[in-house]
Amino acid sequence: MPAALPLSAALLCLLSAPPKSPAKAPAPLGPSPQVAEQLIGAALTDGHAYARLAELTDSIGQRLSGSEGADAAVRWAKRSFEADGVKVWLEPVKVPHWVRGEGSARVLASDTRREQKLAVLALGGSVATPPEGLTAEVVEVRSFEEVAALGDKVKGKVVFFNHSMAETKDYGPAAALRTRGASVAAKAGAVGMLIRSLATASLRTPHTGALRYDEGVPAIPAAAVSVEDAQLLHRLLGAGPVKVELKLSCQTLPDADSFNVVAEVKGREKPREVVLLGAHLDSWDVGTGAHDDGAGVTMVMEAARLLARLKPAPRRTVRVVLFMNEENGLRGGRAYAEAHAAELGEHVAALEMDAGGGRPLGVVLRAGPGGDALVKPWLRPLEALGAGVLLPGEAGGADISPLMPARVPFVGVRVDASRYFDVHHSEADTLDKVDPKDLAQSTAALAWVSYVLAEVPGVLPRPDAPATPLP
Amino acid sequence: MPAALPLSAALLCLLSAPPKSPAKAPAPLGPSPQVAEQLIGAALTDGHAYARLAELTDSIGQRLSGSEGADAAVRWAKRSFEADGVKVWLEPVKVPHWVRGEGSARVLASDTRREQKLAVLALGGSVATPPEGLTAEVVEVRSFEEVAALGDKVKGKVVFFNHSMAETKDYGPAAALRTRGASVAAKAGAVGMLIRSLATASLRTPHTGALRYDEGVPAIPAAAVSVEDAQLLHRLLGAGPVKVELKLSCQTLPDADSFNVVAEVKGREKPREVVLLGAHLDSWDVGTGAHDDGAGVTMVMEAARLLARLKPAPRRTVRVVLFMNEENGLRGGRAYAEAHAAELGEHVAALEMDAGGGRPLGVVLRAGPGGDALVKPWLRPLEALGAGVLLPGEAGGADISPLMPARVPFVGVRVDASRYFDVHHSEADTLDKVDPKDLAQSTAALAWVSYVLAEVPGVLPRPDAPATPLP
Repeated sequence: MPAALPLSAALLCLLSAPPKSPAKAPAPLGPSPQVAEQLIGAALTDGHAYARLAELTDSIGQRLSGSEGADAAVRWAKRSFEADGVKVWLEPVKVPHWVRGEGSARVLASDTRREQKLAVLALGGSVATPPEGLTAEVVEVRSFEEVAALGDKVKGKVVFFNHSMAETKDYGPAAALRTRGASVAAKAGAVGMLIRSLATASLRTPHTGALRYDEGVPAIPAAAVSVEDAQLLHRLLGAGPVKVELKLSCQTLPDADSFNVVAEVKGREKPREVVLLGAHLDSWDVGTGAHDDGAGVTMVMEAARLLARLKPAPRRTVRVVLFMNEENGLRGGRAYAEAHAAELGEHVAALEMDAGGGRPLGVVLRAGPGGDALVKPWLRPLEALGAGVLLPGEAGGADISPLMPARVPFVGVRVDASRYFDVHHSEADTLDKVDPKDLAQSTAALAWVSYVLAEVPGVLPRPDAPATPLP
Repeated sequence: MPAALPLSAALLCLLSAPPKSPAKAPAPLGPSPQVAEQLIGAALTDGHAYARLAELTDSIGQRLSGSEGADAAVRWAKRSFEADGVKVWLEPVKVPHWVRGEGSARVLASDTRREQKLAVLALGGSVATPPEGLTAEVVEVRSFEEVAALGDKVKGKVVFFNHSMAETKDYGPAAALRTRGASVAAKAGAVGMLIRSLATASLRTPHTGALRYDEGVPAIPAAAVSVEDAQLLHRLLGAGPVKVELKLSCQTLPDADSFNVVAEVKGREKPREVVLLGAHLDSWDVGTGAHDDGAGVTMVMEAARLLARLKPAPRRTVRVVLFMNEENGLRGGRAYAEAHAAELGEHVAALEMDAGGGRPLGVVLRAGPGGDALVKPWLRPLEALGAGVLLPGEAGGADISPLMPARVPFVGVRVDASRYFDVHHSEADTLDKVDPKDLAQSTAALAWVSYVLAEVPGVLPRPDAPATPLP
């Protein structure tokens, strides 16, 4: 009965109007239930976010900073915003240009056993080995403390960081080993570094990720081995010395020109107040970056598309930033904070989607005291999605972290990331791993939360700046 | 209280003696409960099968027919039987010697999309492509009938068999496509063949397996793509023509000399009656063949070791055959049937373990009428393992299939293979995938069933020979 629709919409409008309080001037209207219907209804029914994710992963695929894929992704994103009728522009970013080349490794044969191949991926940013490979004995450790305790025993060896990551919550500490392990090992005299892949499932699948070399310490080749191969090394080391050969032909080329893609829906009343929605457009050079961070990219693009259709526009400006170079440099996040330094005082909220395309679980904040009270009353439309709750924990995001000194409040739509690390940074991060239902539901939650932030009469109290400078 | 043990053993012996029936000569004793205790107790507690599997997979690893790994596995198996005090000898087998070389594939870029890499593994036995690769359009089919229906549209194309295997039970029909698909496609004029991996899980993991070229049809290159890549091809083909490049450098070298490893525990009363326990010593050249068929190998070796310790020995001879070349030729199975043709009339049962190292589910038979009645009364000791049941379905095994014309009864200890095809024929078939508990339980079930077959007064009725000759 399509003819009945305008009437029921009008009725809803009446029902949702605040009760008259003739003694005072009317309070500014808050987010409207009709908009909840519109945003959530569209996100859950039109399949637009998933179709766009298929386009990004199937037609562009890998998009590591500096690569042709990254350039193509920038053009695609700009074109897509334009097709959606959302104002878009590019902001220049100089990015690292690292190229993986070939990689292989094997355990050398001994008197008691035959050679075994290891499934490896160079860590992003690794230097190459000599063309004939690097051959050395392996020393297994679980922490930086163990490297220190080993003293001279590390000299001339390949240090193998065999952490015990098993669940999503273990990622943080293991990522510290991956990022800093090569330099910690090199400082102790190691000639190479291996790390067990940071993964919650494995079918002999190595997972890459960035490392960072300390200044003044030799840069040594570093690679992730699959979980199975980490277990093999551990067993073999239990029986005696183990020698590995590692061959990597990575190259770091001169920095390349690239871009953040920035789009916005101008606010109707406070256009200078900005709600920033972020995700990162670059991916690793394995898989097609479907969960990391194709899902985030398509969710924030879709939120912008849906918000741009609202008449009238939300009170404040909603700005989408597709950051370049989250994976191996964070140059996009830093460039944005620098280029927009003068406006950050009016950035009223920043939200980054970068934990995959799982279903929505709720909302998290990083704001000053009283932030909860501003957001909580507006979460009811997310209840049927199982996401109408404020969760403990802090909102954040790598690309928006440079906004912390400017005390920009952070908001997060938390998604189910329990299976995210099954595929994260591996060849297995492909479209089929993203459930269209989950993606649609998280897109719906994001669209509504973005609208709320742009429409509520007040703004989130600003949190304190971090006590220590950011790395 | 070790001193009490002999007494309680004597007591058990008395309790288990059949009731006296003075009117008749005493019936021959059947399998004894003390032996059940001994075999099952040892298999469940000594961890011997798993330790041996670790040795095979970690110290030898891959062992494709004709490779150094296969030679090393033969020497290892002989040495291991000798260490167990089990009589062992080698029986010569000429085996195919196929070498994988390098393999890669990609979807070529089009006007609307960038190039994408495909994760592939050549099918075992495939010919090579030209060194510069084979480039052609892809035609997707689900069956041989679809190839026929397409007629001329297949000419000059790569035929892509995109079956829908999702569970273990789907393996049979999908394996027919893998084995015969290349020749069916070539007959219709195709220049290459791709098949979705036969798998029940995937993290971008291709699964290999044997093909068989028909005589008089051009041998075309053939490879398995990962499930993810099959889905990608399917999506891309939905949007328009897709061209792939396939590069394989496989080689088929002259047949190589190899061996079946045969070991036996001589029967005390009917040494010419043979209960054959089989498994295959060769593996694919990816992963380390832990489930396929390292688990089977170590289970039958362990059964022999435990049976060899029995005093007195079982009534009949238990012979273990570690077949060579199950994966890509079945030469070991055929060689055994040929070399032992004269004895097959006294092969009273054959049992092959080749479905991985899962927990035991029960027993299956392929025997003449009345077979059930012989076996069923002796399954009680397996009840606490969840395996004390005769299951529907037929016992079988690739390596023992050449014994069918001689009407050898088959017995099977069925194991849980619901996750077997997660790793089967892939790089992920490694030791960590085998659960030591499951392996111990299936070893226990196998040891007991083997003993029962060697000890029961009667023998299984022989089944009919197959109506049609074996392939």
